[in-house]
Amino acid sequence: MMIFRQLFDVDSSTYTYLIADETTREALLIDAVKSRLNMYLQLLRELDVKLIKAIDTHVHADHVTALGDLRDATGCITLMGEQSSASCISARFADGDVIGIGSLKLQAIYTPGHTDDSYSFYLQADNHGYVFTGDTLLIRGSGRTDFQNGNAAAQYDSIFNRLLTLPKNTVVYPGHDYKGWTISTIDEEQRHNPRLQVSNKAAYIELMGNLKLPHPKLMDVAVPANQACGQLPQG
Amino acid sequence: MMIFRQLFDVDSSTYTYLIADETTREALLIDAVKSRLNMYLQLLRELDVKLIKAIDTHVHADHVTALGDLRDATGCITLMGEQSSASCISARFADGDVIGIGSLKLQAIYTPGHTDDSYSFYLQADNHGYVFTGDTLLIRGSGRTDFQNGNAAAQYDSIFNRLLTLPKNTVVYPGHDYKGWTISTIDEEQRHNPRLQVSNKAAYIELMGNLKLPHPKLMDVAVPANQACGQLPQG
Repeated sequence: MMIFRQLFDVDSSTYTYLIADETTREALLIDAVKSRLNMYLQLLRELDVKLIKAIDTHVHADHVTALGDLRDATGCITLMGEQSSASCISARFADGDVIGIGSLKLQAIYTPGHTDDSYSFYLQADNHGYVFTGDTLLIRGSGRTDFQNGNAAAQYDSIFNRLLTLPKNTVVYPGHDYKGWTISTIDEEQRHNPRLQVSNKAAYIELMGNLKLPHPKLMDVAVPANQACGQLPQG
Repeated sequence: MMIFRQLFDVDSSTYTYLIADETTREALLIDAVKSRLNMYLQLLRELDVKLIKAIDTHVHADHVTALGDLRDATGCITLMGEQSSASCISARFADGDVIGIGSLKLQAIYTPGHTDDSYSFYLQADNHGYVFTGDTLLIRGSGRTDFQNGNAAAQYDSIFNRLLTLPKNTVVYPGHDYKGWTISTIDEEQRHNPRLQVSNKAAYIELMGNLKLPHPKLMDVAVPANQACGQLPQG
């Protein structure tokens, strides 16, 4: 059996996920936020699980990661994709790699587009399928593709050729939500996500090119901080 | 199988729950927020389910209910407990009543304390147990008991003699969260909710009497509005 928690950082609208094996008590965190460190440590203690691994889906531009602080506090391994510009991590994974946590197995799916180091993770547990989509696929949306080597064509391929080929009833757990959604399914997003109702890749590129989004407020702080696992030296 | 969604209203930190029977496509909403009406109608349409019933766990003091607007938009039945001061509802339930939605059955548990009309709902589906606790039991907290006929002694009994007697692995879905928690379990709250670590009822009454909380900002607007199912006549 899996122990599972979806956690929300209201300041950055980030979802963090705790996954643990109920038998071995080994735990993993996806996309932990630095300012929430004490909340994670409290939950790990109260659930009586040990953090073994912490993963970021990509180098975030909107919040500072807890990877470094979690490593210092728990001795966990910090992981990101092989394309990541973060030099501080313990190990890297590539497309198709399996990240184990007790008897649970997360399969890394390389899904570039929001950034060139964006990954999603697929997990089967307790007869259900789950996918953690980071900022690649959001509920009724998708991550912006206009900075950090973002690429709308690559994101189209990541969504249409990778994520939407997962079983239709796979539960979608996104990296953010701004509107009050907590979960969705692959089937639901395929049919109702407005960005996925395009007829082809060119239409998706055009759609993403016309979003006219403001520059992320924290980007110039968050990206360099996250390349150092959230632990920039004090200047 | 059950279709299930937890939805979050960031303005009031309210959780709303959609529960539907996958076979009959009948749906129920718990604690819907008036300003989110269009979100609910969108989700009902996209999930291809029909809203049959809408319930409030109690007369809320911190947000305006969507009960009246949902009834107008969908023809659903609106339900509250027999103790509720809302005169606008279609029907009332009492402790032990079962509220059906397709093959799913919500059992009403009278849990006064936050208000004198507070109910929780227990549901067994797909081999799991769930309890929707409204403002009676929150994750690592409990609802204030200092207005609307609140009563800390009654809340102690509701939590200790009713909710904590549910199976330990029952998943707790609260009516609000202010810190980023989404779910918990009865076992977890029994062991780690700081308000439940009291030695007896008198200690709980003392604890709740010393909280010194500010007057809820929306109370003078929300309570009369909610007694009219969120549809006060325009003055």
